[in-house]
Amino acid sequence: MKFTENAAGRKVPVMVNGQEMVPYKGVGKHKPAGRKHAPAIASCADYPADGNKRVDNLREALVKAGLTDGMTISTHHHFRNGDLLANRVFDIAHEMGVKGLRWFPSASFPCHAHLIKYLEDGTIHHIQGSMNGPLGKFVSEGGMQGTGVLRSHGGRYQAIQDGEVTIDIAVIGAPTADPFGNANGLYGNSACGLLGFALADSQYADKVIVVTDNMVEFPCIPWQIQGNYVDFTVQVDKLGDPEQIVSGTTEITRSPDRLLLAELTATFCDAAGIIRDGFSFQSGAGGTSLAVGEYFRKIMQEKNIRARFARGGSNKYLVSMLRDGLVEYILDGQTFDLDGVQSMAQNAGHVWTSPFTSYNYHGKGNFAGMVDVVILGATEVDTDFNANVVTHSDGYLLHGLGGWQNCLFSKTVILPVPLFRDRIPVIRDRVTTLCGPGELIDVIVTERGIAINPLRKDLLEKVEGAGLPIRTIQELKEEAESICGVPQTPAPGEEVAAVIKWVDGTLLDTVYRVKS
Amino acid sequence: MKFTENAAGRKVPVMVNGQEMVPYKGVGKHKPAGRKHAPAIASCADYPADGNKRVDNLREALVKAGLTDGMTISTHHHFRNGDLLANRVFDIAHEMGVKGLRWFPSASFPCHAHLIKYLEDGTIHHIQGSMNGPLGKFVSEGGMQGTGVLRSHGGRYQAIQDGEVTIDIAVIGAPTADPFGNANGLYGNSACGLLGFALADSQYADKVIVVTDNMVEFPCIPWQIQGNYVDFTVQVDKLGDPEQIVSGTTEITRSPDRLLLAELTATFCDAAGIIRDGFSFQSGAGGTSLAVGEYFRKIMQEKNIRARFARGGSNKYLVSMLRDGLVEYILDGQTFDLDGVQSMAQNAGHVWTSPFTSYNYHGKGNFAGMVDVVILGATEVDTDFNANVVTHSDGYLLHGLGGWQNCLFSKTVILPVPLFRDRIPVIRDRVTTLCGPGELIDVIVTERGIAINPLRKDLLEKVEGAGLPIRTIQELKEEAESICGVPQTPAPGEEVAAVIKWVDGTLLDTVYRVKS
Repeated sequence: MKFTENAAGRKVPVMVNGQEMVPYKGVGKHKPAGRKHAPAIASCADYPADGNKRVDNLREALVKAGLTDGMTISTHHHFRNGDLLANRVFDIAHEMGVKGLRWFPSASFPCHAHLIKYLEDGTIHHIQGSMNGPLGKFVSEGGMQGTGVLRSHGGRYQAIQDGEVTIDIAVIGAPTADPFGNANGLYGNSACGLLGFALADSQYADKVIVVTDNMVEFPCIPWQIQGNYVDFTVQVDKLGDPEQIVSGTTEITRSPDRLLLAELTATFCDAAGIIRDGFSFQSGAGGTSLAVGEYFRKIMQEKNIRARFARGGSNKYLVSMLRDGLVEYILDGQTFDLDGVQSMAQNAGHVWTSPFTSYNYHGKGNFAGMVDVVILGATEVDTDFNANVVTHSDGYLLHGLGGWQNCLFSKTVILPVPLFRDRIPVIRDRVTTLCGPGELIDVIVTERGIAINPLRKDLLEKVEGAGLPIRTIQELKEEAESICGVPQTPAPGEEVAAVIKWVDGTLLDTVYRVKS
Repeated sequence: MKFTENAAGRKVPVMVNGQEMVPYKGVGKHKPAGRKHAPAIASCADYPADGNKRVDNLREALVKAGLTDGMTISTHHHFRNGDLLANRVFDIAHEMGVKGLRWFPSASFPCHAHLIKYLEDGTIHHIQGSMNGPLGKFVSEGGMQGTGVLRSHGGRYQAIQDGEVTIDIAVIGAPTADPFGNANGLYGNSACGLLGFALADSQYADKVIVVTDNMVEFPCIPWQIQGNYVDFTVQVDKLGDPEQIVSGTTEITRSPDRLLLAELTATFCDAAGIIRDGFSFQSGAGGTSLAVGEYFRKIMQEKNIRARFARGGSNKYLVSMLRDGLVEYILDGQTFDLDGVQSMAQNAGHVWTSPFTSYNYHGKGNFAGMVDVVILGATEVDTDFNANVVTHSDGYLLHGLGGWQNCLFSKTVILPVPLFRDRIPVIRDRVTTLCGPGELIDVIVTERGIAINPLRKDLLEKVEGAGLPIRTIQELKEEAESICGVPQTPAPGEEVAAVIKWVDGTLLDTVYRVKS
C-alpha cells in the first residue's frame, strides 16, 4: 500500500478500496471541484398510478431493486442498538448468495455484531461508516477484507452528495410510513423521532426501499422522508426493540469527578461571557455533557435569560428546558429518549434537522458554525489540541465519529475530559488517531485545570481574574504523567484497518490493525 | 421555422429559442434518459462562518451573484398580483444595462405589465412561464423577441430538475427569513402561506437570493426554503401589496348558471360513488370550483363521512372543512386567502406541499394520481375531450397552465364549463390550443347536460339510472351551435408566439401570434 503525508503530518494511503484519495490539506483548504451526484431521471409512468408501492416483503423489495454482487447498500442508525433491519437485509443477501457488498450504514452498533459472519464469508466486503464496539474490534484485528472508511454525519452527507459514495440500494427503516413511501419517526412502536440520517440516501440512492412496522393510509404526516424519492414500500412486524431504540440510558453522571468536570465547564462558559441572553449551545448525550446542560440551566435561571436555540441530540433534560422556556428552539438531529420523541411530535419549537442542514460542509453554509458553544468528548487530546474520538490509546477502533467533527466549526469548542482513564493519561504528545485538528478545539477542561488554546487569546483575556484554574496543556499533561507515569507509545502499525475522513472528504488519518 | 407533427396531431416547432425540442409522444410514452441537473458543489469555506449572508440591498446581491447578459433569472408568484419583487429585479437589470435576460417566473400576473418595456428594449429576451393578462396579450401580438414557453407547475419542477432550464440566479421573495436564508411564507406583512414554487429554484439554481421584509433571528421556523441552498439574503421594506397577495377574491359564485354547474358536478360525483368515506378531492379557487366544494360539504354532512385529504389551493371554505373535521388533511400548494395562511401556520393537518411532491412527473410518483376526483376549468373542450386553458377562441394567450395539466392524472377529472361564453361555444371540433389530452379528461359538465368520456365505461355504468342528464359530447356541441351558430374557426397562424409543454417536457402544442 502506498502512503503519503497529509497537511496534518499524518501518513495516509493514496488509494483505499480501489478509490483514489485526496489527502487532508488543512481546515477550509480543500476546494471541491465538479458537480453534485446526479441521480437518474425517473418517470411517473414507471410507478403505480395510484401511488401504492407496496411489495410483499423485504426480500421481494431487494430483488426488485436488483440486489446483486458488489453493490453498495445503505442503512441507518435511527434504531441504534435496537435495530433489527440491517441484520435482516444481509441475512437475505446471504440467503440469495450475493457477495462482495459494501455496507454503508450511518453508524453501526453492538447489535450488528450479527454481521461479523458475513464479513467473514465475503457477503460483505467492507463497511463504510462508524463501527462501535464489536465490529470495531473485529476490524482492528484485521478481520475485514476491505478497508473501513469513517466519516462524520456531515461527511456522510457530503460523500453521497458529491458522488464519492454512490448508493445502489438504500433501506430506510421507518416507524410510520404510507404505501407511497412518505415516512416519519414520530409514531409507532419503533418511534425514534426523526429520520435525518436517511435524507441523503433518499435523495441520491439509485433505489430506495422504505420498511415500516406501522403502515398508515396516505398521507403519512409529516413526511420526514418524501415518498417521491421512494421505489418500494414494505410492511414488517417489527423493525426494532423499542427499549433499545430510545434507550433511556441518557442519565446524568453521578460520578463526583465527572460532575466536577461539568461544573467547571459551565463556570468557564459563564466567565467567558458565552452564557448570555439569546445564546446557543450543543451538549452531547453522554453523562458529563448532560450534567453541563443542567449547570447551564442553573446559570440561566439565576440570570433570567434564555437560549435562542439548543442543538440536540435531545433528551428529557433538554426537552424540559424547552418546556420551561429556557430554550426557544431545539434543532434536533437525533432523539435519545421517549421525552425527545414526544416533544418533537407535539412541540412546534422542537424541530427536526438533518445532516444536510446542520453539518454538510459542502453546502452553502450549515448550522454548526452558528452555535455559540459546543461541549464534546474525546478519547485523547494532544498538546497541539488535536483530538481523537475513535480509537483508544491501545489502537483499538471502538467508537464512531458521529457529528463530532462537524461540531468543531462552532464558535467555541470545549472538551471536558478526565486527566486520565484507568491510569492512562488522556493528554498525549500525539493522539493515536487524529479526528479533529487542534486549531478548531478551543478549551480542554480537566478536573485539575483548564487549558485554553493559545489561538483563543480572546478567551484567555475574558476569563483572566475569574479565579478559574487556567493551566497550559503542557502542564496538564505533565501532571497526569507525574501521577500515572509517562505512557508507552505503541509502535505504529503497518496494515491499514480503516481511514478517517475529514468533513470535506479528504483523508485525515489512518487507523492501523492492532498487532496480535 | 421548422415544424413537425406530434402524436396529438399538432404542429410544433423543432427548435425553440435555440433549444432542440422533443415532440409530444402520448401520455406516459416519453421515457426520460439521462440524469438530473447537477449543481456545482459548494463549500462552507466560501460562506460566512457565522451564517450571516446579508448584503445591503437587492442590487448588491444581484451584482455579487454575477448578473450579466443572457442569464436566466427566476422569480415566483407567491405574491400573485401583489408582487413588487420581480419588477424591481428587472428595474435593476435595466439600470445596470444588462441585456437579453431570460425571465423564468413560476407565473406572471397583470402587475408585471411593468416589464413590457423591458421586453421591448431587450433587457428581457423572452419569458419562460405562464403569462396571464397583459403580458399574454403582448406576446400574442408579437411583441416579444424570443418564444414564450408555458409549463405546468409540475413541468416547471421537471424542467429545472432535468436541466432543461438552468437558472443562473433565483430571486426568492420570503415573507419571513433569517440571515442564513431559511425562509417561510407564514408570517409577516407579505404572508402568503408557502413557498413551494421556489423549491426547485433553491435546490438547483446556481445562485440563490432570498429577499424578505421580515428578517428574524436564526432560526426561522419552519424553513420552507432551506438556507443551506441560499447564497445571499436581503432585507427590504416591502415585498408586495398584502391586499393583492391574499386577495380575498375567492368568493363562491352567485351566478345561477354557475351554481347549477357546481351542483350538477357534485351530484354526479355522488351518483358515481366518488364521495365516500376516506375519499380525496381537489377543487380549484375559481367561483364555480368553490361552489362544488360547498356542495361536497353538504353531501358529506348528510352522509356523515369525511375526506382523507383535500388538495389545495386553500381558502376559507376548505379551511372550515378542515376545522369541522370533514377533511382530515389539506395538502396545500398555494394559499389564496388569509384564512388559508393562518390555518397553515396553526393547524398541523394543514400541510404545505410543493410541485415536487404533488406534480413532478419525473419523480418516483407524485400526489396527483392519488386524488380521487379533481374539478378543473377550461376555456375550450373538443369532441375528443381535449381541453384548452391558455388561449381564448380568438387565439389570444391570456391564462397560465398552473397545476392544471398535472391534475389530469387524478383518478377522475371533471371539467364543469358553461356551454357557451359571450355566445361563443365552449365545446369545439378542435381546441384552439391543446393543453390536456382528451384521454385524461373524464367528464364535461355543462348546464345542459353531462358528457362522459367513452373511455370511462365504468362511470357511464355507475350513473346509469341516476336521473342525470347524460349526453354525448357531440350532442352538447350541437346544442350550443343551435343556439349560438357554428363558430368560425380562425385561420391558423404562422408565427409562433409561445409553445405549450407537456408534463414530461415534450412539446404539446404551439400558440401562434394573432393576426392584426
